Amino acid sequence: MSAYDELMTFQRETEALSQVAGRLGWDMETVMPPGAIQQRAEEHAAMASLLHARRTAPQIGEWLAKAEPADDVARANLRLIRRDFERTMKVPSRLAADLARSTSRAHKIWAKAREAEDVAAFLPALSEVLELRREEAACLAGNETSLYDALLEEYEPGAKASELSAMFDALRPGLVSLREAIRGQGRAPQVSGIFEEGAQMALSTELAAAFGYDFECGRIDKAVHPFSSGSGLDVRITTRTAPTDPFNCFYSTIHEVGHATYEQNIDDAYLLTPLGQGVSMGVHESQSRIYENQLGRSRAFTGWLYGKMRDAFGDFGIAGEEDFFAAVNAVHDGYIRTEADEVQYNLHVMLRFDLERALIAGDLQVGDLEGAWNERFAADFGYSVDRPSHGLLQDVHWSEGLFGYFPTYSLGNVYAGCLHEALRRDVPGLDDDLAKGDTSKATAWLRENVQQHGGLYEAKDLIARAIGGAPSEQPLLSYLERKFGGIYGL
Amino acid sequence: MSAYDELMTFQRETEALSQVAGRLGWDMETVMPPGAIQQRAEEHAAMASLLHARRTAPQIGEWLAKAEPADDVARANLRLIRRDFERTMKVPSRLAADLARSTSRAHKIWAKAREAEDVAAFLPALSEVLELRREEAACLAGNETSLYDALLEEYEPGAKASELSAMFDALRPGLVSLREAIRGQGRAPQVSGIFEEGAQMALSTELAAAFGYDFECGRIDKAVHPFSSGSGLDVRITTRTAPTDPFNCFYSTIHEVGHATYEQNIDDAYLLTPLGQGVSMGVHESQSRIYENQLGRSRAFTGWLYGKMRDAFGDFGIAGEEDFFAAVNAVHDGYIRTEADEVQYNLHVMLRFDLERALIAGDLQVGDLEGAWNERFAADFGYSVDRPSHGLLQDVHWSEGLFGYFPTYSLGNVYAGCLHEALRRDVPGLDDDLAKGDTSKATAWLRENVQQHGGLYEAKDLIARAIGGAPSEQPLLSYLERKFGGIYGL
Repeated sequence: MSAYDELMTFQRETEALSQVAGRLGWDMETVMPPGAIQQRAEEHAAMASLLHARRTAPQIGEWLAKAEPADDVARANLRLIRRDFERTMKVPSRLAADLARSTSRAHKIWAKAREAEDVAAFLPALSEVLELRREEAACLAGNETSLYDALLEEYEPGAKASELSAMFDALRPGLVSLREAIRGQGRAPQVSGIFEEGAQMALSTELAAAFGYDFECGRIDKAVHPFSSGSGLDVRITTRTAPTDPFNCFYSTIHEVGHATYEQNIDDAYLLTPLGQGVSMGVHESQSRIYENQLGRSRAFTGWLYGKMRDAFGDFGIAGEEDFFAAVNAVHDGYIRTEADEVQYNLHVMLRFDLERALIAGDLQVGDLEGAWNERFAADFGYSVDRPSHGLLQDVHWSEGLFGYFPTYSLGNVYAGCLHEALRRDVPGLDDDLAKGDTSKATAWLRENVQQHGGLYEAKDLIARAIGGAPSEQPLLSYLERKFGGIYGL
Repeated sequence: MSAYDELMTFQRETEALSQVAGRLGWDMETVMPPGAIQQRAEEHAAMASLLHARRTAPQIGEWLAKAEPADDVARANLRLIRRDFERTMKVPSRLAADLARSTSRAHKIWAKAREAEDVAAFLPALSEVLELRREEAACLAGNETSLYDALLEEYEPGAKASELSAMFDALRPGLVSLREAIRGQGRAPQVSGIFEEGAQMALSTELAAAFGYDFECGRIDKAVHPFSSGSGLDVRITTRTAPTDPFNCFYSTIHEVGHATYEQNIDDAYLLTPLGQGVSMGVHESQSRIYENQLGRSRAFTGWLYGKMRDAFGDFGIAGEEDFFAAVNAVHDGYIRTEADEVQYNLHVMLRFDLERALIAGDLQVGDLEGAWNERFAADFGYSVDRPSHGLLQDVHWSEGLFGYFPTYSLGNVYAGCLHEALRRDVPGLDDDLAKGDTSKATAWLRENVQQHGGLYEAKDLIARAIGGAPSEQPLLSYLERKFGGIYGL
């Protein structure tokens, strides 16, 4: 066997074990008996330690030194393996262990602090996690890049904070003024009544199928927080139901189907190889968001969904398709990122992005974080945070040390805007299909231009190839101004 | 850290990974999307290879050489680790790999051959598996023991075929004549009607709770073949439903609850250590069978169950408790081991035990196996096998190379007989409780005397301690003659 083949055999086994570890997470969130939690922690730790040992195995370095790629696929595999190996080797195992312990502790403290609305109880744990992540960033960055970019690389390989920042800064004023203009208008129509859980799940299943989710290689369960899990031939999604809020269930499902079909539609030849999963968090989010918003919340598709909901639930207080479209896209005041509409969502993300960059750079101290959060929130949203669980304590990310993750949400939205523009250009008359609940042309375009490639191209190159040029924030902004201008008669 | 502590830390991680691998099996049988099968095979293989590497890690030998046990628990842990390590090291990894490949292939061939009623299609694969297992047995046996005992040791450590054989040979004539006597009597009453699946599962859940199954650390799902899976704090069971045969569901559930509560009731201090699981297949089966039969099919308990079934299903064609007791314990002609009643079950097992011993010893050739099976069946049961899927092709075990496994089923029944006798001696008036669906005194006795100890004592010693003497087949035979003599008025 050649060095490349030996490396890939080893890697394939690592990928299989990594799928097993991921499924352990799925199990915990969906079917695990509650009393199993203590044992599960040991199982997780054993799998994590095992995967860490494989990722830092010295043979990988030897194989990488000798391996000669025969084609572009091999070159891409080697590039991804090398990047992962070099990053992992730069972090001393003592630091990796400290981080694992510290984030696990901080996560529990955060959950209690949020419950108790007690920022002070969380800050010492946050400081510890932050300092360890800064230390890790210093190991990763060397003299080559900023601390923040070194962390960002984990979630969005190849991205630079300065470029994202330029994009977001160009987007923000347009969003703030769109938000302000809408606030002056009346409230959107709202659904009323109780939406039975079984019927919500049934329509959820129909929606997943309508967006091309393959149930032969997947399943839908309920979970507290919806997620998609797994790659290759076993990609599972979860959703949730609330009796008075059916859109939460339906659009969570469509969102997760975006993530899941991305994984399902990757070229079979890449199964259990580094190319066999989504290339970056930003591209992943672009798929979930274009399914959920540009397609799922379009006037055409909501027309079809309105009929389906009338069939399933009878009269639910919405008089016609236009009102339904407005209800699905209602813009409303709120504090919580995950509940935000398309107009305000990215304002939430940009706030976090700017604050976490300042934290990592050392320009903002943890003790000043709550004040900085609340000030920025009031400036962007026009009203004040009323309690910590609506502000600094709302997101899990920082407690888990995930600095560098937030911007990928907005980058995903920007990419979704670009992809939607290109899709509409390439597939004329798409709305006729969407109005019948038929997404096949749209999802085929995304499969062809984005999803099938897995990790073959760098994220930014992949999007550039798909849209035929450099990505920018402009398509997203134009789309939002057009859509919400129409709905709110601006 | 002492050598013992280092060894136990390593072992604890291995046990955790082994639980993960086991849960992968649970997932496959209950919730896995069908299209995932090919990827799952690679995941299984990766976990198996990983666990094999850990079981043969050279450090184990070094730790074992240095470790000094501080107490009985440590001594038992070292005994179990040493036995597993020495057995694993005796088998060349080439042979282990050949066996894995060969049994995986033979299993698929067996499934097709059974479907097609084609013995000839299965025999070459069976020969290959048999030869590899004989080769493995030779590695394990050295000059110290017989080939068969070397295999038996895997499932029932410390057991000898000669002792089991003496026990079974003493049991067999009594069973054959009891069977013949019953065949002369009329048919037992039978249930009629359709038993709705949801109601079967609901009563199943109630039965599991009645036998002390802890749902905080477990769950019930449906599977094609009922099983119990996992140890420690996450022990899951499955059952199945058939619309016209509610006993299949209920007694499968009680049987699996016997296995599962054994695992759940092991001393918490043994969690994720070698002591933290059932000590042998025979003792495991003793728990499932005493729950299912001596308790679950007792006159007292069936009286309670009759009331429950009347509540759930109304009139189902059984006139009263006595008839219901007879229906639950109906003895009927049949070919299939897993469907056999208490009287005939062990005849099925002894047939396989005698044949597989002859195969391993080289006294019986694979080409003569079907003839030998059919001849023995006619002699013991009084009628002839009508097709291969009712004979040689009915069980999965040999295709998977599980020679040495069958006798543990009957040993479990013998142990259940012994434990039941001792239980009745120690807990007078038990039937008053069972008649109210209250098994708590019985299950507490079993937890106290058997289950809590996990792997602390050798299987035979454990049973001897529990019953206060050497186990024998006599209590089982007396119980069967008394019970079925009463039902059939012999």
